[in-house]
Amino acid sequence: MCVKCLIIAAGRGSRLQHKCDSKPLVPVLGKPIVERVIRSAVRAGIDDFYVVTGYNGAKVCKFLNTLAGQCRINITPITNEEWDKGNGLSVLKAKRYLNENFILMMGDHLVDSGLLNSLRRQQLPEGEVMLAVDRNMDNPLIDMTDATKVKIKDGKVVSIGKDLKTFNGFDTGIFLCSPQIFQGIAESVSKHGDSSLSGGLRCLGEKGKVNVFDIKGRFWIDVDDSVALKKAEKALLSDLRSKQNDGPISRYLNRPVSVRISRYLAKFPITPNQISFISFLLSIFAAGLFITGGYQALLTGGILAQFASIIDGCDGEIARLKFQESAFGGWFDAVLDRYADAFLLFGLTWHDYFKDGNPASLFVGFMAIIGSFMVSYTADKYDALMYSRLKSGIRIGRDVRVFLIFLGALLNQSFWTLLFIAVLMNTETVRRVYICRTDE
Amino acid sequence: MCVKCLIIAAGRGSRLQHKCDSKPLVPVLGKPIVERVIRSAVRAGIDDFYVVTGYNGAKVCKFLNTLAGQCRINITPITNEEWDKGNGLSVLKAKRYLNENFILMMGDHLVDSGLLNSLRRQQLPEGEVMLAVDRNMDNPLIDMTDATKVKIKDGKVVSIGKDLKTFNGFDTGIFLCSPQIFQGIAESVSKHGDSSLSGGLRCLGEKGKVNVFDIKGRFWIDVDDSVALKKAEKALLSDLRSKQNDGPISRYLNRPVSVRISRYLAKFPITPNQISFISFLLSIFAAGLFITGGYQALLTGGILAQFASIIDGCDGEIARLKFQESAFGGWFDAVLDRYADAFLLFGLTWHDYFKDGNPASLFVGFMAIIGSFMVSYTADKYDALMYSRLKSGIRIGRDVRVFLIFLGALLNQSFWTLLFIAVLMNTETVRRVYICRTDE
Repeated sequence: MCVKCLIIAAGRGSRLQHKCDSKPLVPVLGKPIVERVIRSAVRAGIDDFYVVTGYNGAKVCKFLNTLAGQCRINITPITNEEWDKGNGLSVLKAKRYLNENFILMMGDHLVDSGLLNSLRRQQLPEGEVMLAVDRNMDNPLIDMTDATKVKIKDGKVVSIGKDLKTFNGFDTGIFLCSPQIFQGIAESVSKHGDSSLSGGLRCLGEKGKVNVFDIKGRFWIDVDDSVALKKAEKALLSDLRSKQNDGPISRYLNRPVSVRISRYLAKFPITPNQISFISFLLSIFAAGLFITGGYQALLTGGILAQFASIIDGCDGEIARLKFQESAFGGWFDAVLDRYADAFLLFGLTWHDYFKDGNPASLFVGFMAIIGSFMVSYTADKYDALMYSRLKSGIRIGRDVRVFLIFLGALLNQSFWTLLFIAVLMNTETVRRVYICRTDE
Repeated sequence: MCVKCLIIAAGRGSRLQHKCDSKPLVPVLGKPIVERVIRSAVRAGIDDFYVVTGYNGAKVCKFLNTLAGQCRINITPITNEEWDKGNGLSVLKAKRYLNENFILMMGDHLVDSGLLNSLRRQQLPEGEVMLAVDRNMDNPLIDMTDATKVKIKDGKVVSIGKDLKTFNGFDTGIFLCSPQIFQGIAESVSKHGDSSLSGGLRCLGEKGKVNVFDIKGRFWIDVDDSVALKKAEKALLSDLRSKQNDGPISRYLNRPVSVRISRYLAKFPITPNQISFISFLLSIFAAGLFITGGYQALLTGGILAQFASIIDGCDGEIARLKFQESAFGGWFDAVLDRYADAFLLFGLTWHDYFKDGNPASLFVGFMAIIGSFMVSYTADKYDALMYSRLKSGIRIGRDVRVFLIFLGALLNQSFWTLLFIAVLMNTETVRRVYICRTDE
């Protein structure tokens, strides 16, 4: 299993130069492209990097140095003064560092870390290379005119180039290489005067040494110009919306809005934990409005609560977008959510009780609070015991709870809202106990 | 690593005959001795048993048959008609079943499953045996006159017998055997006319083939008469009191009482989950008394709540005593505890509010409920993140909470009790967040 990775980040990227004077540092949703590439590889288990820089190399090197410290990885910068010639030369510069199999990536191709993890575990025949190929001929993320095409026959790449007339795959720019790749490029330079990586592959391909790794629909994109940059950002954002354990309100109402907010927030140095805390404060404020009394305060509070619930999605989104996920962050968010839920329901109970002084409000409000809590409390162990069944069921979670509070405020029905939440949440808890028990 | 186990359960056990007409079936805290022996071995990873029965064998076999089904293990019964002669003959009856290394145990010796697990992983030299030896010469669980003594020299047993004048260890009746044990016993019978297991060991010992396994203070006891039976029950109960994550009130107040109750309850076919539910109902009833109002109801409720908290310890104790522990049981208990806590605090809040109609009671009561809940909610993830630190700290848990409610009821100070719980529990939650954060 290979643990080294060579990244080519030497080009000028003239088509993106208006964004940043160094292509590897062009920000995609607040993070430089090359940082995204490296962090994806880190996630896939790689910790030893060799990055070839060229145009504006000193600036890129300085950035990589900081990144290496942050990620606790090894990054060896390699300089290519001939960055304006074929990209095969950049690969050749790394020859003396790499005497074993390695992953080769382009510094401007974003890629799914699952794909990398799978590629680095492939068995590579001695002295050959393996190219990750996208066989989806309709992939909307590919710029058809600029993409490098490949022709595959019997699991081998038989021809490669931008101008192939017939082809059945796209070169993703991601490889698992043996050091033989260096001979391939050297041969291409000396025989054909072609210093491109594709030229080197062509030489190896003629000898049947270029194997195919089918990416099977996993994400990759070549961020070459502004259009591709927009596509890349859109793809990253839409990936956020597919969070598996979202409840129904979250999926169809909150998430589409929160993703748009996250896209905006990603530009600023705000942390996920700060976002969690802001959402919490908004909920407390909403609860305070409930306590104030009167329909207007109730309605404003309800809207604010729903807004806080939407913002509450942004912490996780920003964390995923900026590679800032942490065990503490998830836990902190959950703790604040429980407080926020309880305060909202307590505010609503107070509102209802002091409207007409019916003691039943206190009891129903209490049952709504305890029931909501129990649904969250049982979730952890319930998930572990019942994971497979849960997947197919509907999750009744925080998104539903806050939405019901919002609806109740809108309709000025605090008592019935509390009663409904109390019944729903406690029934769900009992149902979970029943299912876990019968499954034992 | 050996996976087979031979158990000798052929004797009459005349000194315990007043308890049961078959010694292996004499109940120890509600479970027959031989069942405890087998379940300890199952816990140590053994699943293939050979049990030699003799006196009243048909009854024992019937019991074993049922047990095999319950534990999903294999139990092969072996009959020894000569059960009134030396116990070596019982071992010999198993000869044709055991052609590989096996654990040999006595059907009336209770033993720690950790000890068994460690013994079965020992490297046994070809053709030898290994005896688990207790080198604690002051072990109060040993009947000095009746015990089999051993003399150890250079890690080997050099002499063995009940009447040794000088000795430095006790035979626990637990062995890791190669099939060579059968030759040893056969030799003892033919040479010395001695059909005891000790005789067989003596023959092997003379050839330097009996190795020593030091049990290092782990639990074992030979349940031979009423005195030993009482000692065994006491040892099992005192083991319950050493539950590691008990809070202070639990350890010093609740546990000593609950263990006594469990000792009594163990005789009946009541399940741990039933006990959890009874404790829950008692708490709900206590909360109802709080709501009734007046000092007398408050005091009765407080005492009842504390009593329910004590009973709440019995479910886990009975589960451990009767080998009925389950993931669902622990979870079910935790879920009911959260409901019980919330109801008690809600009852106290109601009591306080309707005494003088001060709205601050509602807020303080709410904070007590949410704080208590948060302490439980944060515990799981907190434990995982902070396990090592937690061990050295004091746990503020349910035992403390309910005891404070009891004290508050006794002193007729519902408001200050709620306030104290609210401050204590929410502070503890914030402290946990702080610790987890700085530890990141």
